[in-house]
Amino acid sequence: MLSEYKISFEEALLNQYAAREPKGLYEPIDYILQDGGKRLRPILVLMGSQFYSGDYKRALSAAKAVEIFHNFTLLHDDIMDAAPLRRGRQTVHEKWDTNTAILSGDAMLILAYQQLEEYEAQLQVALFRLFSKTALEVCEGQQWDVEFELRSDVTIPEYLHMITYKTAVLVACAFKMGALIGGATTEQAQLLYDFGLNLGIAFQIQDDYLDAFGNPETFGKQVGGDIIENKKTYLYLLTKQSDNKTLVEELEQWFSGQPQDPTEKIARVKHIFQETNAAARTQEAIEKFTDDALQTIEQLGISEDNQKVLRAFALKLMQRQS
Amino acid sequence: MLSEYKISFEEALLNQYAAREPKGLYEPIDYILQDGGKRLRPILVLMGSQFYSGDYKRALSAAKAVEIFHNFTLLHDDIMDAAPLRRGRQTVHEKWDTNTAILSGDAMLILAYQQLEEYEAQLQVALFRLFSKTALEVCEGQQWDVEFELRSDVTIPEYLHMITYKTAVLVACAFKMGALIGGATTEQAQLLYDFGLNLGIAFQIQDDYLDAFGNPETFGKQVGGDIIENKKTYLYLLTKQSDNKTLVEELEQWFSGQPQDPTEKIARVKHIFQETNAAARTQEAIEKFTDDALQTIEQLGISEDNQKVLRAFALKLMQRQS
Repeated sequence: MLSEYKISFEEALLNQYAAREPKGLYEPIDYILQDGGKRLRPILVLMGSQFYSGDYKRALSAAKAVEIFHNFTLLHDDIMDAAPLRRGRQTVHEKWDTNTAILSGDAMLILAYQQLEEYEAQLQVALFRLFSKTALEVCEGQQWDVEFELRSDVTIPEYLHMITYKTAVLVACAFKMGALIGGATTEQAQLLYDFGLNLGIAFQIQDDYLDAFGNPETFGKQVGGDIIENKKTYLYLLTKQSDNKTLVEELEQWFSGQPQDPTEKIARVKHIFQETNAAARTQEAIEKFTDDALQTIEQLGISEDNQKVLRAFALKLMQRQS
Repeated sequence: MLSEYKISFEEALLNQYAAREPKGLYEPIDYILQDGGKRLRPILVLMGSQFYSGDYKRALSAAKAVEIFHNFTLLHDDIMDAAPLRRGRQTVHEKWDTNTAILSGDAMLILAYQQLEEYEAQLQVALFRLFSKTALEVCEGQQWDVEFELRSDVTIPEYLHMITYKTAVLVACAFKMGALIGGATTEQAQLLYDFGLNLGIAFQIQDDYLDAFGNPETFGKQVGGDIIENKKTYLYLLTKQSDNKTLVEELEQWFSGQPQDPTEKIARVKHIFQETNAAARTQEAIEKFTDDALQTIEQLGISEDNQKVLRAFALKLMQRQS
């Protein structure tokens, strides 16, 4: 079913902007949307609709809205990070230029909104409200992320707030949009939102965890990348709370520089994460947020078969290190 | 009445984002919205509503949407132009940095959409559709503008298309939003849109004209600025169509360099604009588009008093050189 969603979605998304003028505006949009990836967020929209109506196709436009918005954030984030590559391809500001990347990104945000126009008025108004709220939270999350990199006193609650806004709200929004399109009650749609929020938080903390402790063969990114870049991850923030002042000081030492050969740094920092129990506590947090998500499944008012589909999906997502 | 609109609008707009967190995102938004200016576009929204319902206050949120959107375009345009100043104040990317200007701009586009949430569903859906269509056209117009600067074969119809999208559609959209909120019929709202479109085009061509031939004491910008920067204005494009090859060649000569003292360049280019009749034909175009606008006034289905208000407003706007 998931692969059917993906195929339908790609079919609906691709090539629709390729022929539009001015080409200088739309070719970069077509380029970044061709970029593939897992299409995770749009699939969540389709799942949400399927669960409540048995029809996912009616949710294709909302799925496009979410994916176009997500790619808009990638496009503008890549400018801000001066990233040369994304998924092995040149970023838009590299292939074209920064001005093009800014303007094409702006247009994508509008194109995302336009996708919602096909729904009837009452539904459309609800989708618009949810979409705007979410989009603004993603901007706020991005700003918190930027500011946290410059601060040395970021707390765990602050960090959770940041990853919630930067990542989890869009996952939650995707599910809820699907539910609303599928005809769920407000309460059911909100529960699916909460499911997505907790799963999104668990996913993001796991991303921090796997960056240090993942299997290099399956993780997809360079293991230790966050450590090399001195990123203030969940593991790092938990370690800083430790009573073991010697290890905390050693961590700070390692995080004050970027040695040319990072092998020893990565090994020592991982050792510190484990010795201070930050690694174990991070795994506990992942499990807690995953469990919080799973516990809402029975209240969603969806069939037992669909409950199984959702549970299997969540577990598969969270066991990607295996 | 116009000054009452402006006061009400400023009251509604200002300070609403100043206290929001993260400050790094919202302070630049508050800063650019404080920037004042004529608030022309939001006043058009209020006028449109007043004409059809006698109530402009219900249109305040839509007026904010239009003004926030307009300032979003200024913010991102200033990055693209690397402009250090706007209305005598530092631009956002200068006072903060480019990344802040990108992200705060993105948030403003979303905040503009959110302003429309207060209207009832059927109206909201119509406003959203009009707003997205307009916003995308403004992006397209901006892209055409960028591309035209790199081309030597831009035609007058292409130029009119560009200024229509870049400037006039937002003027038209502002009027139409107001009309829709005021309860105009679809046809009436569309006629007021057409009025705004023609007036916006006339205004933009006049901007080109006044940049060369305006009264330095009342024009507000440096007279001759477009000539100094070799900008392909309406005057320039018309001159290029002239049969007087000698003068066209001289124009090209002047437009291939930027002399340190531009006095002679400005004087000669203005002379060429006049000798080739481009100046007179530009004035004719301004009058034509203004007349096209004025001729719709009687069909708008608004009271004679309001017709007078609108006519006086348009004439005042178009006689700003006096």
